[in-house]
This record gives sequence, structure tokens and C-alpha cells, in this order.
Amino acid sequence: MQEIGIGIIGGGYMGKAHAVAYAAVGAVFDTRLRPRLEMVAASSMASAEKYRAAFGFARAAENWEMLVRDPKVAAVVIASPQSTHRAAAELAFSLGKPVFCEKPLGASVEDAEAMVRAAQDSGLVNMIGFNYIRTPASQYARQLIADGALGRITWFRGEHTEDFLADPDIPANWRTDGDANGTMGDLAPHMVNAALALMGPVDSVMAQIETVHTDRHGKAVTNDDQAQMMCRFAGGAMGHMYFSRVATGRKMGYAYEITGTKGAIRFDQEDQNALWLYKAEGPEAERGFRKILTGPAHPNYAAFCQGPGHGTGYQDQIIIEARDFLEAIADGTPKWPTFADGLAVSRVISAARISQTTGAWTPVQGD
Amino acid sequence: MQEIGIGIIGGGYMGKAHAVAYAAVGAVFDTRLRPRLEMVAASSMASAEKYRAAFGFARAAENWEMLVRDPKVAAVVIASPQSTHRAAAELAFSLGKPVFCEKPLGASVEDAEAMVRAAQDSGLVNMIGFNYIRTPASQYARQLIADGALGRITWFRGEHTEDFLADPDIPANWRTDGDANGTMGDLAPHMVNAALALMGPVDSVMAQIETVHTDRHGKAVTNDDQAQMMCRFAGGAMGHMYFSRVATGRKMGYAYEITGTKGAIRFDQEDQNALWLYKAEGPEAERGFRKILTGPAHPNYAAFCQGPGHGTGYQDQIIIEARDFLEAIADGTPKWPTFADGLAVSRVISAARISQTTGAWTPVQGD
Amino acid sequence: MQEIGIGIIGGGYMGKAHAVAYAAVGAVFDTRLRPRLEMVAASSMASAEKYRAAFGFARAAENWEMLVRDPKVAAVVIASPQSTHRAAAELAFSLGKPVFCEKPLGASVEDAEAMVRAAQDSGLVNMIGFNYIRTPASQYARQLIADGALGRITWFRGEHTEDFLADPDIPANWRTDGDANGTMGDLAPHMVNAALALMGPVDSVMAQIETVHTDRHGKAVTNDDQAQMMCRFAGGAMGHMYFSRVATGRKMGYAYEITGTKGAIRFDQEDQNALWLYKAEGPEAERGFRKILTGPAHPNYAAFCQGPGHGTGYQDQIIIEARDFLEAIADGTPKWPTFADGLAVSRVISAARISQTTGAWTPVQGD
Amino acid sequence: MQEIGIGIIGGGYMGKAHAVAYAAVGAVFDTRLRPRLEMVAASSMASAEKYRAAFGFARAAENWEMLVRDPKVAAVVIASPQSTHRAAAELAFSLGKPVFCEKPLGASVEDAEAMVRAAQDSGLVNMIGFNYIRTPASQYARQLIADGALGRITWFRGEHTEDFLADPDIPANWRTDGDANGTMGDLAPHMVNAALALMGPVDSVMAQIETVHTDRHGKAVTNDDQAQMMCRFAGGAMGHMYFSRVATGRKMGYAYEITGTKGAIRFDQEDQNALWLYKAEGPEAERGFRKILTGPAHPNYAAFCQGPGHGTGYQDQIIIEARDFLEAIADGTPKWPTFADGLAVSRVISAARISQTTGAWTPVQGD
Ligand SMILES: NC(=O)C1=CN([C@@H]2O[C@H](COP(=O)(O)OP(=O)(O)OC[C@H]3O[C@@H](n4cnc5c(N)ncnc54)[C@H](O)[C@@H]3O)[C@@H](O)[C@H]2O)C=CC1
Ligand SMILES: NC(=O)C1=CN([C@@H]2O[C@H](COP(=O)(O)OP(=O)(O)OC[C@H]3O[C@@H](n4cnc5c(N)ncnc54)[C@H](O)[C@@H]3O)[C@@H](O)[C@H]2O)C=CC1
Ligand SMILES: NC(=O)C1=CN([C@@H]2O[C@H](COP(=O)(O)OP(=O)(O)OC[C@H]3O[C@@H](n4cnc5c(N)ncnc54)[C@H](O)[C@@H]3O)[C@@H](O)[C@H]2O)C=CC1
Ligand SMILES: NC(=O)C1=CN([C@@H]2O[C@H](COP(=O)(O)OP(=O)(O)OC[C@H]3O[C@@H](n4cnc5c(N)ncnc54)[C@H](O)[C@@H]3O)[C@@H](O)[C@H]2O)C=CC1
Repeated sequence: MQEIGIGIIGGGYMGKAHAVAYAAVGAVFDTRLRPRLEMVAASSMASAEKYRAAFGFARAAENWEMLVRDPKVAAVVIASPQSTHRAAAELAFSLGKPVFCEKPLGASVEDAEAMVRAAQDSGLVNMIGFNYIRTPASQYARQLIADGALGRITWFRGEHTEDFLADPDIPANWRTDGDANGTMGDLAPHMVNAALALMGPVDSVMAQIETVHTDRHGKAVTNDDQAQMMCRFAGGAMGHMYFSRVATGRKMGYAYEITGTKGAIRFDQEDQNALWLYKAEGPEAERGFRKILTGPAHPNYAAFCQGPGHGTGYQDQIIIEARDFLEAIADGTPKWPTFADGLAVSRVISAARISQTTGAWTPVQGD
Repeated sequence: MQEIGIGIIGGGYMGKAHAVAYAAVGAVFDTRLRPRLEMVAASSMASAEKYRAAFGFARAAENWEMLVRDPKVAAVVIASPQSTHRAAAELAFSLGKPVFCEKPLGASVEDAEAMVRAAQDSGLVNMIGFNYIRTPASQYARQLIADGALGRITWFRGEHTEDFLADPDIPANWRTDGDANGTMGDLAPHMVNAALALMGPVDSVMAQIETVHTDRHGKAVTNDDQAQMMCRFAGGAMGHMYFSRVATGRKMGYAYEITGTKGAIRFDQEDQNALWLYKAEGPEAERGFRKILTGPAHPNYAAFCQGPGHGTGYQDQIIIEARDFLEAIADGTPKWPTFADGLAVSRVISAARISQTTGAWTPVQGD
Repeated sequence: MQEIGIGIIGGGYMGKAHAVAYAAVGAVFDTRLRPRLEMVAASSMASAEKYRAAFGFARAAENWEMLVRDPKVAAVVIASPQSTHRAAAELAFSLGKPVFCEKPLGASVEDAEAMVRAAQDSGLVNMIGFNYIRTPASQYARQLIADGALGRITWFRGEHTEDFLADPDIPANWRTDGDANGTMGDLAPHMVNAALALMGPVDSVMAQIETVHTDRHGKAVTNDDQAQMMCRFAGGAMGHMYFSRVATGRKMGYAYEITGTKGAIRFDQEDQNALWLYKAEGPEAERGFRKILTGPAHPNYAAFCQGPGHGTGYQDQIIIEARDFLEAIADGTPKWPTFADGLAVSRVISAARISQTTGAWTPVQGD
Repeated sequence: MQEIGIGIIGGGYMGKAHAVAYAAVGAVFDTRLRPRLEMVAASSMASAEKYRAAFGFARAAENWEMLVRDPKVAAVVIASPQSTHRAAAELAFSLGKPVFCEKPLGASVEDAEAMVRAAQDSGLVNMIGFNYIRTPASQYARQLIADGALGRITWFRGEHTEDFLADPDIPANWRTDGDANGTMGDLAPHMVNAALALMGPVDSVMAQIETVHTDRHGKAVTNDDQAQMMCRFAGGAMGHMYFSRVATGRKMGYAYEITGTKGAIRFDQEDQNALWLYKAEGPEAERGFRKILTGPAHPNYAAFCQGPGHGTGYQDQIIIEARDFLEAIADGTPKWPTFADGLAVSRVISAARISQTTGAWTPVQGD
């Protein structure tokens, strides 16, 4: 059992999630490297100190740079706003430290490209935080598709829908400002990543992006409330994705449907412990979508509970991420999803934005 | 209680459904006009005679023309292939007889336009067979939206998906030949009609239409297996529709989701007696999609059963259509949906086909 | 195509359902005997005349006796209150006429026994109206169990729950008076019949029966609002049934769960077109309850619609009953369920009532 | 931030769950007392040492007694077999140490009574591990009922069903031996606790308990596979509970339905992030069971995630327990559920066993 000092930049929504994850991951997965909550940084020393005390870090940092440079911080987790991702990652790589960065990779495609270059030049472990794809159910879906259980895939439909801005009476705030915080910038990456992970690369897209409530309490909204895109996958399948933060009634609508010649899959994160599978086999009278409850027979479940159907939750996804990051560091080999996977997501989104402007099908930039 | 002689052209899938409907409708709805199954026509006298005996018609007709001209046939129901719709309808109108025509209105937009003209010139009752929108659940959904229960509508997603051609091993047949029998020709009309009925007119569309299995047992497939379109409704909402006959696992996937600023609706014909409604009101902790079971409190249910949740079925939709046709004749006033509504559907589909060719957003022709 | 004159006693809830069924059944099932709505009887001539006009009968009867005796009435359907069942059936048998009687068989076990004797002595076709068990889904469930698909059955749970008297503010009415109208008398028979049909005979029961709202607007309620019973089936399985008319939120809660060593089934009449099946076979990771949508592959579905998942409804169950009654008459052989099956149900309920009084397990009387 | 040394007896299924919980709880809930994984004990030093390394404890103990006596262990968690609960708890109390004990309280009602006495005599914090009732959904259900949202409760149905012994081919093992490991001993306590927590005390019960597979590979099974009981709650409601380890297809079937005069609730642990609520208010046409997704508006959710519908899992329930134990210690006041609540459960089960023997309704012993 070897310790490793973890530094986390950010102590908000995701900063806390990662802090909890590193506190728990050793006991859950019996990891070779045992994380020590060494240091936390935030937008000010005061808030960093507050997070330190709350989450149980050894020390608080004046700012992210101090954290990255600290000799006892051997691995860096970036859970601060998009604008900070690139600089923090580049510094960490330059100091030989592996980096886990929250999605989206950077604030722009340029950032993302620079970060991938920095990561690859360094040869260090680099990962990006697409946590939803890590539920046992979605990991199993990937496996089923890879194993050919659905035959040739012909259709993909994905969505990421929530309703936190559905009420037009909510005043404008930081979320209603700037591309990075809009639906395409903030919500789309998870589902685009899912699409790539489950289906392979996207060839071309055609999108429609809009601000539904252009004015909130007299203040202009400068980014998008909902967006959709039709797409063509390199593997041949047709697809559609929809993203919304004004989807009244939807709380965690990360959902997908995948159709193949031999079967089909349906998944909805709002019931993350179930995967619906249809197999076009056996007597017609007995066919139907079956609701598979995740259990020890599915990827990464058993460490959380020996009983099937007992269920994992949001926090457990982050623990799985932490496990992979620690294992990647122990092995010295990157683990999926890396920064390159984050860049691939940014490129799909970038193509979608172009198609919205041109009104035409737009190819997605490859490597 | 006044009798009316009904003539039905076609005794297949829909011909039978209408025959049963006219046998039952009087007892179900206590209609003023009581239908008499007077005459049936088919592709040959032999099959017409077979249908006559099976369904209980008084007489069989040599062909559809003889049926339309028969003096005891006072109203005509067209349930034969698309190619026959126009001529039969035009003849009936010219003889002063009201016409109920199965969807789609004609084999082409030109047919549809001619049929609307003929109907309007005649001043006679004319209806088109969009039966799915007539379930108590979908009628109630229309009512809720019209009453503003969802607030301003921002998003519509509809699909009509089945899997009768999902297996690539099914040989080519009449269904795999010709635009009218493809997914856009055959499946799309019902859901496009639903979109128009629930949401109002569509301004413009952008579609992707494809043949998934281009070859079946060595024979070319000449029409589309699946199609999707993004759309913009005149009322401002964004929308998406998807149609497929290769949707493995889907049997009657006529389904829609509608989001508004105050609520949302979800419906799936595979459980046609339930409507899911979310209302953004009351304490946050108590909010959720509620599964409303149809009952006497919903449109057209009570005539079938006094108990809520007891359920109506496919055949009952056709009985509701028959009721409306008979009532329209008794009143001498057309009832929704008329031929004009069928034409509106054809125009959306026509615009979608154009957009597929041009790769650009395409306006839908108005009146 | 041979006609048969049908006389229906009662024109209320079920009288109408049967009238519609006989109007439609010929066209639906291409029956050998074609019913003619000959005569209807009710509590008065005036109401009989009203039903005649509404449902399309040829004639109205002064009273049920006149209907039964009418020479043009060749088969009798009894859809009037329990108190009338026995006398009407006995007279019909004495005149050589087959009888279809609504559930429950009579107003008491004695009535039921007398009716079975009369039926058996006459050698005539006799049937009882347990319609819910006739959905394609429940018929298929029976078949699966009979075929051993679930292995040895170990557990049965059934319920029939509705909420029409859930509100304590509903005033006392005819439903709140007399054993026959209570939960055990009125709701229990359908599910007890289902238990017998799916599982075989019940050996012994132990029940708890109660009036929840003993007083309604100052008037005493004299029968039961809810009841439950544990039971032991002759085949060895353990079971439980629950009945309630105060089950807030339940509209048509005719539902059962059946567990066997190789699989399990779940069904809920509120979604009557779905049967949930679990099979303990194949890889653990792929197991789950599958939602089978009824379709042409299931019993009695195809006559209603050629498309799977399109759905049958309440009225269709009554049409299936009418088909069986007509076929039984044409064949001269009784068809399940006969009066004897109705008596078997009454005996389970009778044993339950005794167990409630004695507080002890009570054997169910056999033949 | 004050540390507290935690000693856990047992490192199996639940021992690990508690170890992870104490590793994470501080960061999740910002507890005043911060747990230090001080010591773990198991059936041998070797396994204790293995658990120490895997879960990150400071030290392993030779046996439970050494752990309880260790001066650095300030609070004891008992997660070893039932037979060890009493002695460990009694020793801990005698040394002035608070105790958290896994369910069931002891191996017998006598044990349970002795443990309650020891706890009460000591005046120390004592808790029992009924984790399932701690999901945000079930906590919210308790709150709704307590607030009168359902009106007067008339019916409760609960079950705890799993299928780990459904296959008759599984050989006999320790689980198939001895009352404590049977369905009533092992599975029933959670749901009986839920019944008491949601509904209040049980007055009397009438049970049916059985071994379905009496012989496994030639070895006798000495305890029960399934059991059911009817019950009467002190508050007046009728109830039923069912427990099974042979419920083919059920993985975590901890489920309940509660009916009141104004509403109803349904919950199933297999989808632990949803609570179904029906309210008998508003227009009939809009009523239905609503699926409420848990979120920050529900008890104990927000600490795990700021987003509704993102979901908590099994492990999170144990973290909530750990929080309550630590807070109770910090406050010096016991928190629900205490040993006395565990005893109340044992008494219901004891009465059920008696009723099975006598075949008669049996009162549940009170205080
Ligand atoms: N994987 C997922 O499901 C989610 C990912 N995210 C991503 O996580 C990242 C953080 O988002 P949230 O936690 O929601 O934000 P948040 O607003 O809750 O927290 C941001 C944290 O960053 C700190 N911070 C701000 N500027 C900083 C600076 N210059 N230096 C150091 N710390 C600074 C703040 O003090 C705060 O603690 C973003 O990249 C976001 O896209 C956010 C939510 C969910
Ligand atoms: N509303 C709905 O849900 C559905 C509507 N349809 C529509 O109903 C119409 C009929 O389709 P199906 O019943 O499925 O076809 P089908 O193939 O089952 O039956 C067609 C009937 O038309 C008769 N027919 C063919 N040519 C004829 C002619 N020249 N003159 C007279 N009769 C002729 C045939 O003998 C046959 O009885 C089509 O327009 C179709 O689009 C079809 C299926 C479902
Ligand atoms: N299978 C099922 O799902 C159901 C079965 N039933 C059964 O059907 C039977 C009738 O019940 P409902 O239709 O609900 O009652 P209802 O009150 O709606 O109708 C009763 C009918 O019987 C007539 N009637 C009453 N006394 C009569 C008499 N002495 N002679 C001739 N007609 C008389 C009335 O005029 C009325 O038309 C009952 O046995 C009931 O248990 C009722 C509802 C559902
Ligand atoms: N709350 C819940 O959901 C559950 C509670 N339980 C309860 O937790 C307790 C433990 O059960 P599991 O963890 O499933 O058992 P397990 O068999 O997985 O683990 C038992 C542990 O106790 C240790 N042990 C056995 N004898 C011991 C002794 N004399 N001294 C010290 N340690 C000893 C073993 O080494 C092992 O680490 C039981 O009381 C059980 O009823 C079990 C499973 C679920």
C-alpha cells in the first residue's frame, strides 16, 4: 500500500465529488496507490481553507499554481471552471504530474487541442471526467455492442436533458452567459462522449441550436437553451442528439436508444441501475425489452455491493474514475477516456456549431 | 334511428377494421345514423365475396366503381391501396356521396391536392383516417395543450417506429418497393398528423432519409427504411421526428414528448391507455411525471367502458372514426380531420423529401 | 352463415358491453353462427325500450321471463343483478336454451350450486363471464405456465383493486349494502378465477375481511371495503390475494405475480397489452423481466389487429367471450369457463368468509 | 474537526460497507467528528489483517474482544454474524463505548432484549443498521405519511424478495441452516422495520412460513425459503408482508405500497431513486401516480449531489448511517433507529413464528 498525494483544484460541485471519491476509493477498490487528500485550491484562500476543513484535506493552497507546484502533490485533479483547465494542465505536465481534468477539456477547441498536445508530449497519464458513461449499465452497454449482441447498428438517439432553466422566471446568471456555459458547451459533452464511446466516430452533423428564453428579467441570455443535431456515424448508422436545460420535468435525462439488426438497447440515467435490452431471438411470442438490473455480473459493480439490484449512485461513478486514474498512474499507462477523447467531443460540438451557421451538413474534423 | 348504407372499398387490414367498426359503432355511441354493411369491394369479385361473407356485408361488388355507384351505398369508406384513393373519392363526390379515406390521402401530393379540391367543390363530408390521434389519451393531450396546461411549447419529439422489416433476411416484397410504401410514405403520415394536431403548422424541415438494407435476397429495395427530420413549428417550437420500419423491438412506437414552460407530456402508443403529465407546480419535492390512466373523464372513453383504467384498444380508435363520420353526415358538416388535414401532412413529407435532396432547410408549403 | 337470435337480460354496464360484442363478433371472428340482437330486457319496459333503441335490438321485452321464453331468442345472456341470475338461467335451461351468465354465478353458494346442477342436468352450453382472464396476455400467461416455462410454481400473488369508494365522503349507496355487492362478492371473483385458471385448485384459505368506512354520511355500510387472504394451492404453492374498492389511485388493479423455479410472470390489467416474463436462463448479466407486448403471436389477438403492440381493450375481452359462446353453441360442447368454474370461485370465497369468522385456516370445498 | 477512532468487527459484506462509509462520511457530510479507521477484527487474525490492508485501517485485532477493549477505539461497529452481536455490544457498553450493530439485533429475541437493556442501562449511544429505510425516497415517504399527505392509512403491503436461492440446484450452505439465516431471520427484519417506521406498531399477525426446497443435493434445508404474514397495525390499517429468497427474478425486492384515504405511495428499492405518489386531488382527468425522482428537495440527498435525479446508491445508505452514528455520539443523544427499534422488529417476527405454529392470529409483545 503506497500513498499518493492528491491535489484538487476546485471545491464546488465536482471538487467535492472528487474529494469524497479519493477518500473512499482505496477501501472500495483496494487500489495499489492509496490517495492522501493533500491539498485543495479554490478561487480564494478563504474558500480553499473552508473546503480543506470540510472535506478533510491536509492543506489549502493560495491558488491553483501553488497547488500544482507543491512537492507533496503527486497528481492533479482539475475541477474548476473551464477557463482554468488549460493552464493548470499544462503546468502540471511540465512538472511531470499526471492530470485528471473535468469535462469539457478546455474552454474552446483550441484549448482542447493544446491540452492534448501537452499531454501527449509529456507522455504522462491524462484523463477527462466523463463520469456518466462509467455506470455499470453503460459500461455493459458498450460491451454488448462491441460483442456484436445488437448486430449491425443502424440508429442511435441520445439526449442530455435537464430542467434547471426551464422556468422563464429564473433570472439571468453566469450559466446564461457565454458559449461554454450554454447547453452545447455544458450539457452536450457527456452525451457526445457516450455516442462516440458506444458508436464510434461521427462523420458529419447538422444542428439546430437556440436560445428559448432570450431575455430573463430584462437581461439578455447570450447562450443556448436547447440544441439538436442529426448525425452520420463513420460506422454507417444514422443518429440524433438533443440537449436541453429547459426540458421541464427532466432531471437527469442522459438517455440513449441504440438499434441494431439483432437487438436494441435503451438506457436512461434517471434509473441508472437498469439497462433495457431487446434481443431478436427466440419465439416471437416471448420477445420484449428486458429490464436488466445491474449487479456483480456487470462491470465495476461488485466492489460497491455483492447484491445485484442494490444499486450504485452518482458518487460511485466518480469513485470509478478515481480508481482508473490511480491505476493508470500505478501502471504508467493512460486509461480511457484521455484528453484525446475530450478533444474528439469538442470537435463534434464545434462542427455542430458550424452547421447551425451554414445550415448545411458539416464534417467533423478527424485526427 | 335512421339507417345508412355503407360501402367499403378493401377488405384487408383496414377494410376489416372499418367493417367491424360500422358493425359496432351504433351500439357503442347510440349514433343517429345506423350503418348497414351494404357492400364491399376488393381487387376481385372472389375476394370481395369472401369479405362479404366474413364481415357480414349484404352484397359484394365487382369492383370499387360499382360499389361507389350503387344506389344503396350512401357513404363510401376507402380502405384500398393509395393508388385507388383519388379516383374512388372523386367519383363518390361527383355522385354526392360523403367519403372517408384511409391515410395517406393519395399516392402523391398532386393526388392529395386534387382530392381536397374535389371534396371542397362538392361541399360534402370528407374525412381521412388518422386513427391513432383518436385515443382518449391523445385527444386529452391535445386538449391539455390547447388549454395552456403546458404553457408555451418549446419542444416536440415524435416517432413512429416498428420493426416489421428489421430482420435483413426478410425478402423484398411490395412494401420494399415504391415511395408510397416506404417509411416516409407509409409510417410518417400518422405522426406528422399528430405533430400538426398537437403543435400546429410546421414552418420548415430538414430531413435525412435512408434505405438501411438496400438489398434483400438479391433484390433491390427501392424505398426508405428509416428517416428523421428536424423541424421548426410556426408557433416557434423546435421539433424532431423519426420514422422507422427497422426499429428492432418496437412494435407500435407511435410516441411523442412535448415540453412547455409549465409542463410536459409523454405518450407511447404501446401503452395507449396512459398519458404521462408533468406539471411544474406545487412543492419541488412532490413533482414528477404522473401516469394518468384513461377513463370516463377523458374524451370518447365512457362509451366503451364506465370504469377508468379498463382500457380501449386499436379497434376502438376506428369505432371513434366511424362515429365522427356518421355524425358529420347527420349534421352535414365536415369533422376533423378532413382531406385538407391529409394534404397538410403530405406537404410536410414532401418538404422533407426535398430537404433530403438539397441538404438544406426547406419551407413547408402553406395554403 | 347461420343466424342466431340473442336475448340479453340487462342493458347497464355489462348489458351494453354484451350488446356491442354481439354486434361486432361476427365480423371480428368470422363465426359460424351470426348473432342477431333479438331482444333486450331490463328492470322495466321503458328502460328495455331505451336499450333496444340505443343498442339496436329488434325488440324489447316486458321482463326477463318473456325474453327467455321468446321463440326467436335462441341463446340467453344474463347481465342483470346477481339476484336474477339463478331464476333466469334455470328457466332458460328448462327451455333448452344455452346460457351465458355474468359473474358471480349467483347471489350465494347455494344459488351457484343449483345453477351448476341445472346446467349439467340440461346438458346445454353454459358459460360464465370472467372476461379479464381472456386478454391475450393472460391467456398467454396460462399457456406459459401450462407449458412449464416457469418450472414448478412456488408463489402466487393476485389483487383486484379499484378506488371507486376510496373517498370516505361518497354517500352510502346500493354498492355499500349486502354481501354480494361488497369487495368479496363483487371484485374478488375475477381474481379468484384467475388464480384457479393460472394455478389450479386452492386447498385452504385464511382471510381478513373488513369495512374501512363503516359509516357514510350517517348511513351504515353493511359490506366489506377490502379483504385479503393467504392460501395454499393444491399444487403446493403458497399464495396471497387482496381485494379493495378503497385502493386510492388504483383504477383497474387486476394484477398478479407468479414465481416458479425457472421463471416468473407479472401482469397488471392497467397495462393489459403487456406481460412481463423473467426466465432464469442465459448469462446472468443478460437476465431481466422482459415486457412482452401482445400481438398476433398471442392467443386471440390477430382477429383484432395484424400489428403487434397495437393493443386490444376492455370491449375486446367481451367479444372474445361472445365468440366462445357462439362456437360452443355451434359445436354443442361447453367451453371454459362454465358454471362449474363459477361455482369453484364461489367456494373459495365462501371458505374465506368462514376463515374470517373462525380465525383459522379453512379448507375449500371440492366436488 | 475532532477525530474519533472507529473499530469495526467483521470485514465481509457489511464490514466493508461500513469501512468505506467511515472513510467517506466526513467529506460527504462535514461531520463534527472525523472517523479514523482504527481497527478491524474478523474470524481470524489473518483475515483481519487482510481487511486492514484492503480497507485502510491502522491496525488489525486478534479478535473482537481485543478490538472492543482497545483504548484507541472509541466507537464500535458490529458487522459480524448474529451470534456475536450480544457479547460484543455488552462489552462495549460496559467500557463506555457507543455501539452501532448490524441487523438483526441479536440471534434471538432474548439476545435482543438483553442488548436493549444493556444499552439503556449504559445510557450510551446505540444504533441498529436498517439501511434501506434511509434512502432519500423512503425517508421522504415517512415524512409524507407523518404530514398526513395520504390521509388516514388503510392498507400496507411490503415485501423483501430476492432470488439468491431460487435455483433448486444450489447446494445447501450456511444460509440454508438455522432460523437466523432463514428468510424470516435474515430478510424480514428490514421490511418489518420499514413497516414500523412508516406505519407505527403492529398489533397482531398471522403468518405462513415454509421451506420450498427442503433438500438440496441430498442435504436437508433447516430454515425457511419464503414467508408471508397478514397483520393489523395499531393505527387500524390492514397489512401484508412477504419475504422470499426464492423469488426468481427479484434482486432487491424491498418494496412497499401504502394506501390512505387521500393518497397512496409505491416504492421499490430496485429503483431506489424514485417514489411514486398519488394524490386524490385536482381534476379526476389529471390524476395519476407520479414518479418523483429524488433530489436536493428530499432528505439527505443534497450532500451526495446537487443535481436532482442524479441518484444515490446502496453505499450511500451506509454513509447516512455513519453520519447519524457520529452525530449521535457528538450530541450524546441516541438517534433512530436504536436497539429498541431492533427489538421491536424481533418481536414482530417472533409473533409471526408463533402464529405459524398455532395457526391463529397472534398479538405482538409490546413494551
Ligand atoms: N462531470 C460532471 O458531471 C460535471 C462536471 N462539471 C465540470 O466541473 C468543473 C467545475 O464545475 P462545478 O464544480 O460545477 O463548479 P462550481 O462552481 O461548483 O465550483 C467551481 C470551483 O472552482 C473554484 N475556482 C474558480 N476559479 C478558480 C481558480 N481560478 N482557481 C482555482 N479554483 C477556482 C471555485 O472556488 C469552486 O470551488 C467544470 O469544468 C464543469 O464543466 C460540472 C458539473 C458536473
Ligand atoms: N390507419 C392505419 O392505421 C392504417 C392505414 N392503412 C391504409 O389503409 C389502406 C389499405 O391498406 P391495408 O388495409 O393495409 O392493405 P391490405 O393489403 O391489407 O388490403 C387492401 C385491400 O384493398 C383491396 N384492393 C386492392 N386493389 C383494389 C382495387 N383496385 N379496388 C378495390 N379494392 C382493391 C384488396 O383486395 C384488399 O382487400 C392504405 O391506404 C393504407 O395506407 C393501412 C394500415 C394501417
Ligand atoms: N364482467 C365484468 O367485468 C362485470 C360484471 N358485472 C356483473 O354484471 C351484472 C350486471 O351488472 P352491471 O351491468 O354492472 O349492472 P347495471 O346496474 O349497470 O345494470 C343492470 C341491468 O340489469 C337490469 N335489471 C335489473 N333488474 C332486472 C330484472 N329483474 N330483470 C331484468 N333486468 C333487470 C337493469 O335494468 C340494468 O339494465 C352483475 O352480475 C355484475 O356482477 C358488472 C360489472 C363488471
Ligand atoms: N444491512 C444489510 O443490508 C445487511 C446486513 N447484514 C448483517 O451484517 C452482519 C454481517 O453479515 P455479512 O457482512 O453479510 O457477513 P459476511 O460473512 O460477509 O462477513 C462476516 C464477517 O464477520 C467476521 N466474523 C465472523 N465471526 C467473527 C467473530 N467471532 N469475531 C469477529 N469477526 C467475526 C468474518 O470474518 C467476516 O469478516 C450480519 O448480522 C448480517 O445480518 C448482512 C448483509 C446485509
